[in-house]
Amino acid sequence: MTNSGDFRGVLVPVLTPFRPRLDTNPAAFVKHCQWLLDEGADGLAIFGTTSEANSLATEEKIELLESLLAAGVSADKLMPGTGTCSLTDTVRLTAHAVKQGCRGLLMLPPFYYKDVSEDGLFASFAEVIERVADSRLRVYLYHIPPVSAVPISMRLIERLLATYPETVVGLKDSSGDWSNTLAVLEGFPQLATFAGSEVFLLDTLRHGGAGCITATGNVNPGGIRSLYQHWRDPQAEALQTRISEIRTVIQSFPMIPALKAIAGRFYTDPDWRIVRPPLTALDDARGKSLTAALDALQFSMGTYLESV
Amino acid sequence: MTNSGDFRGVLVPVLTPFRPRLDTNPAAFVKHCQWLLDEGADGLAIFGTTSEANSLATEEKIELLESLLAAGVSADKLMPGTGTCSLTDTVRLTAHAVKQGCRGLLMLPPFYYKDVSEDGLFASFAEVIERVADSRLRVYLYHIPPVSAVPISMRLIERLLATYPETVVGLKDSSGDWSNTLAVLEGFPQLATFAGSEVFLLDTLRHGGAGCITATGNVNPGGIRSLYQHWRDPQAEALQTRISEIRTVIQSFPMIPALKAIAGRFYTDPDWRIVRPPLTALDDARGKSLTAALDALQFSMGTYLESV
Repeated sequence: MTNSGDFRGVLVPVLTPFRPRLDTNPAAFVKHCQWLLDEGADGLAIFGTTSEANSLATEEKIELLESLLAAGVSADKLMPGTGTCSLTDTVRLTAHAVKQGCRGLLMLPPFYYKDVSEDGLFASFAEVIERVADSRLRVYLYHIPPVSAVPISMRLIERLLATYPETVVGLKDSSGDWSNTLAVLEGFPQLATFAGSEVFLLDTLRHGGAGCITATGNVNPGGIRSLYQHWRDPQAEALQTRISEIRTVIQSFPMIPALKAIAGRFYTDPDWRIVRPPLTALDDARGKSLTAALDALQFSMGTYLESV
Repeated sequence: MTNSGDFRGVLVPVLTPFRPRLDTNPAAFVKHCQWLLDEGADGLAIFGTTSEANSLATEEKIELLESLLAAGVSADKLMPGTGTCSLTDTVRLTAHAVKQGCRGLLMLPPFYYKDVSEDGLFASFAEVIERVADSRLRVYLYHIPPVSAVPISMRLIERLLATYPETVVGLKDSSGDWSNTLAVLEGFPQLATFAGSEVFLLDTLRHGGAGCITATGNVNPGGIRSLYQHWRDPQAEALQTRISEIRTVIQSFPMIPALKAIAGRFYTDPDWRIVRPPLTALDDARGKSLTAALDALQFSMGTYLESV
């Protein structure tokens, strides 16, 4: 299968639904993925941080990916997260995803050891690329130091691009630090660079970036996609203000539990609120105050009001 | 199989040897484990931080543990590390190790998400204990915030002990912060508390602790064991000074690569120097300066000079 080139637009790190005994729920996962694509998501970054992917075993990720493909979701829409602490698991997940035709992979550096050398991180990515040894492999580097505590430096990006220019094609910057995103955009215009939050979407696009891969895309794909579509139009600033406002409310709660609470209400399925430890679900009181805050903004999942 | 009660003494987080293609080398692993026990190690904390365990897949850990048991190493000497980011993997590894009769398990908290709540961490350990559901399970909590970036607080220990007094029996403190170790020793005298470095061994024993679980035990088990044996004797301070001096030299190099370089020299097997990325092996120049520094101390692996 040939892919359609680099990803662009609004990608969603898809929430992973669990059953009460904490096993994954492939049917609910497939349904949510299909809904996101129907709402206009340009791609699904399954198995990201928002997906609680590192709380899953390798086998569980493989099974979820296969459920999605079996349900007819195109691999051309998929950017699975495949980076783990373990070289063995990262190679296994990456090789499997490429073989299934996934258009790109979002790759964390190994994140157990801290303060590791640039040589060590370069070797981590290089080993995976060399072992997978598939010309279809397209890697998007995943920079999320607030969670991984292992940053991807400018110099590391430069070395990877020099050695694997056909393979390393993009980056997601979830540092939350616009000055870093700007440095990547300016330093590596050949990369498809995604902001890790829609708050930076307009700025990212104005500086030649590819779009955003954002947690809140799980509940507001239409709104965020609307800014992507109209970013050169007069209403762009107003659209940015609107989606940033919604994000600000959601992120005043613990992000993943809040998104799952919103999804639970939308799908009228309280199991959607379940998270795996070490995360904890939103309690009823906080769930209600989240709902109230979103109601005050006239926002609910699936009914984006293009009020501008 | 019944175990012999809580561990005490000097335990070694065993280095994991790799072959040039970075696959594990069970034969070299078994040989090193047997040597450590012959040198007097009170237990083998396989699959710890020093073991690069989080750079291995679950299957690789299971295979190494089974190699060890097949070679006749007693499960009563084993304290495998079984804590991973993923609840699924942690439960699988823990259940397997308990079923094999391992006397204890050293358990990291899930370490991908940072700043997680005490409730979330409590639930992480509780889920594992409840799912493994085996009265033989003995958990040693693994506090290593410089690497995991997810600390185990005094309040979390208190809650776990209140709920699982038969199961949660010990703790390894690799914070490097003696004031924390002292607080655990004084706050929880019922726990078998291990210092994460032999530098604190004498102080730990004097405050009722169980011993130490220390990386350098891989190369200096005899020396460290000697202090454990003589800690009430007149030579204790001198023994402490001697082993601390050796540690200080080794830790002035990157610890795991340095230990592997020493093991490579001892076993006359250069493959021992291999590490998995993101770690990098000691280069020749640094290997030589390590050797010179240890020679200057009249120290080499396997020939501990009780020069006091």
